[in-house]
Amino acid sequence: MAEPTEHRADPARIQIEDDLYGLDPAFVRAVEDALEAGRGDDANALVEPLHYSDAADLIERLSAESRRRLVEVLRPRFEPEILTELDESVRDEVIAALGFADLATAIGELDSDDAVWLVSQLRGDELIRVLEALPPEIRAIVEQGLSFPEYSAGRMMQRELVAVPAYWTVGEVVDYLRASTSVPEQFYDLYVVDPRHRPVGKIGLAPLVRAKRSTRIKELMSDENMTVPVGADREEVAFLFRQHDLVSAPVVDGAGRLVGVITIDDVVDVIDEEAADDMLRLAGVPDTDLYRAVKDTVRARVPWLLINMCTAVVASSVIGLFEGTLEKIVALAVLMPIVAGLGGNAGTQTLAVAVRSLATKELAFDNAFRVIGKEVLVGAINGMVIASIIGPLAWIWFGAPAIGLIIGCALVFNLLIAGLMGSVIPLTLEKFGVDPAVASSIFLTMCTDSLGFFAFLGLATLFLV
Amino acid sequence: MAEPTEHRADPARIQIEDDLYGLDPAFVRAVEDALEAGRGDDANALVEPLHYSDAADLIERLSAESRRRLVEVLRPRFEPEILTELDESVRDEVIAALGFADLATAIGELDSDDAVWLVSQLRGDELIRVLEALPPEIRAIVEQGLSFPEYSAGRMMQRELVAVPAYWTVGEVVDYLRASTSVPEQFYDLYVVDPRHRPVGKIGLAPLVRAKRSTRIKELMSDENMTVPVGADREEVAFLFRQHDLVSAPVVDGAGRLVGVITIDDVVDVIDEEAADDMLRLAGVPDTDLYRAVKDTVRARVPWLLINMCTAVVASSVIGLFEGTLEKIVALAVLMPIVAGLGGNAGTQTLAVAVRSLATKELAFDNAFRVIGKEVLVGAINGMVIASIIGPLAWIWFGAPAIGLIIGCALVFNLLIAGLMGSVIPLTLEKFGVDPAVASSIFLTMCTDSLGFFAFLGLATLFLV
Repeated sequence: MAEPTEHRADPARIQIEDDLYGLDPAFVRAVEDALEAGRGDDANALVEPLHYSDAADLIERLSAESRRRLVEVLRPRFEPEILTELDESVRDEVIAALGFADLATAIGELDSDDAVWLVSQLRGDELIRVLEALPPEIRAIVEQGLSFPEYSAGRMMQRELVAVPAYWTVGEVVDYLRASTSVPEQFYDLYVVDPRHRPVGKIGLAPLVRAKRSTRIKELMSDENMTVPVGADREEVAFLFRQHDLVSAPVVDGAGRLVGVITIDDVVDVIDEEAADDMLRLAGVPDTDLYRAVKDTVRARVPWLLINMCTAVVASSVIGLFEGTLEKIVALAVLMPIVAGLGGNAGTQTLAVAVRSLATKELAFDNAFRVIGKEVLVGAINGMVIASIIGPLAWIWFGAPAIGLIIGCALVFNLLIAGLMGSVIPLTLEKFGVDPAVASSIFLTMCTDSLGFFAFLGLATLFLV
Repeated sequence: MAEPTEHRADPARIQIEDDLYGLDPAFVRAVEDALEAGRGDDANALVEPLHYSDAADLIERLSAESRRRLVEVLRPRFEPEILTELDESVRDEVIAALGFADLATAIGELDSDDAVWLVSQLRGDELIRVLEALPPEIRAIVEQGLSFPEYSAGRMMQRELVAVPAYWTVGEVVDYLRASTSVPEQFYDLYVVDPRHRPVGKIGLAPLVRAKRSTRIKELMSDENMTVPVGADREEVAFLFRQHDLVSAPVVDGAGRLVGVITIDDVVDVIDEEAADDMLRLAGVPDTDLYRAVKDTVRARVPWLLINMCTAVVASSVIGLFEGTLEKIVALAVLMPIVAGLGGNAGTQTLAVAVRSLATKELAFDNAFRVIGKEVLVGAINGMVIASIIGPLAWIWFGAPAIGLIIGCALVFNLLIAGLMGSVIPLTLEKFGVDPAVASSIFLTMCTDSLGFFAFLGLATLFLV
């Protein structure tokens, strides 16, 4: 156990088997203690060697007072990348503590994509004051970046890239890379452009290094050349990277000219967020709000509950139609949650698969009917399985075979509806350009609750009263 | 509009604004038509230029008969990577159509990580026959890869890597890269190792290309050197890559020796799958099963419904305790779904945030109490907001102020419970090493349903009967 840890020399990380890279609570406490005791140098010595992502995690975990103190400690050599890794509400605190002058300096040191993103997160007055404090050439780049729509390729791309003409030799390219001062520190691919600066191919660094100096770029470059329009949605960009296992992709303007490059590290965040956002939206929260104030959290979550309140009232009204029946047979009221609950659960299963398959483009309109048909069939079979258990159980419970038969029929019907609606609703929303993750589950619950109650209580009214 | 498409020359893709890279249904139909008419050469001409991921998507979208025909058409030059991109059930079909000899050839052509993964997907008899058909040296690598636990770094890593000693110069490294035949086609970083083959640093290709031939590797290499133990869980690996914006990471054995490398393209798939899996598991489906047979889909989804059936029966039993009360005041039965439904929805909001925050390590045991406290408070406030609307509504509906008061109190109580349980349950499961995404929602629904009904009907029994 001794030797490998010697290389994983990260003091902030736990390094136990199932939590190798989690932030160590003892480390957080040590920093917090140093800050509270006013031992700024000790705190600095602890935080200085950290990767900026780890420093950001640490700042999130500290108390508000310690955060402010740590900003003071780090101010002389504040790593600007920390700002790009913080959660929204903590970032606002840190920016406030940092002040405009130091914030503008930090933004000036970032890669152009990170600078644009960070400025885009500022509001009103803050935004204007920071823009004014930026050096003119960086301000121009940031303002141009902000002119692209949010969540577009234009916002994700960085300006720093390496473009070479096809007629150059490997030797000329290497000499250019060594001499140029505008080459980014990190890059993975070189873009080959025509005289109008339109990308015609790309070369990874590995083949470039291995080639002879006299080889022409034209012979080395790969002709696989997917370009990303500057206005493309970031979900499309993420799909392209995942689909073609890319590490970078060229971004082109309306005339096909190379204007920037998107690299995998930016896409990784998008892939992660998009997949997680689907889960959060299905559950009715706009985003993870762990560090957000109670007031703002309530404001973010109440609208969803109000909408669900309306669907619950609709379901209640359906039950209200059958008050007379319920008065006579109170056993029905006892069994109602089974019909509604299982319908909701079966529908959510279908819904989650549909939302995910739409995101990965496995589900599209040309195979929609096949999928809907399958889901209806699966729903009906699942309904029969559940009905075959609940039916006899209800019979025994209430000593009435008819109640068993009726809840069985209602379950088959409701799980069939769940399969149908669980696939039709997200497809319909997608068709009309609405994010299926946001609104699907409301419509689904309304259908399974209301139709489930209607079937169950309706059948009971017909045959039992 | 004309010029940029000229570069995005992918015939299979739709290339319309909000679906730039979706598979074009017209293209799928053209391939299907060619295969059905027996025009194999036409089908081959259409499919040949595709990227393997696009070819895999196409195969998934075809009918079972056309899939078999397409395999015959592609057989002479079958791209082995296609197999790594197919959905489980479709892959089984393609493998069956391909036969063992051609499957073994395909596996032999893959990178070692892909080969190990593909073999790991085979079952029993198939697995043994394929292993026997593999060339001995590839068989040895695959068998060693299979000896690591599923979802571990050992399974994800590839053997092909570039390791150099620290005392070499840049010139020596470049000459070695040009001369060696064992260097992988694509790589992003070189690893610097000590005489015992333990990693001591790494160098990106960009600084290597830009450095002078006489520079020592020791001076160029970065000392940031996070290693991944060969047994690390793939979630930990994904976290490390996301956290440190890595494009590759070295994998070490128990003695700290470099045994392989994990690259970003493999991690992208893991990040995407892990985030999506949380959503699917919360919804009670093991994975997206769009192309799976009805029989297998039912088998995969029924267990979840059976468990939920049990929790629904528990909730029903709670209602059963109050049959006497319900007989007297049938209005209570009408309002029951509102109490249960809103509790479930509010709890799911908290649960989704907690599951996501645990996955990103933002939520841990040292800040658990702060988060639980906040969620309880948010739940109570949300409960008051909803109660202030539903209470008066129920009063008017049933003409009884007491019913309005009782449902209001029950809602506040149930949403408070939802906030408490929505955060406590996933934290508890995580503590005991159970995936919080899998089991949380069952326990949550049981709590909000049963306690909600108990509070509502109990209060009514105390004060109204």
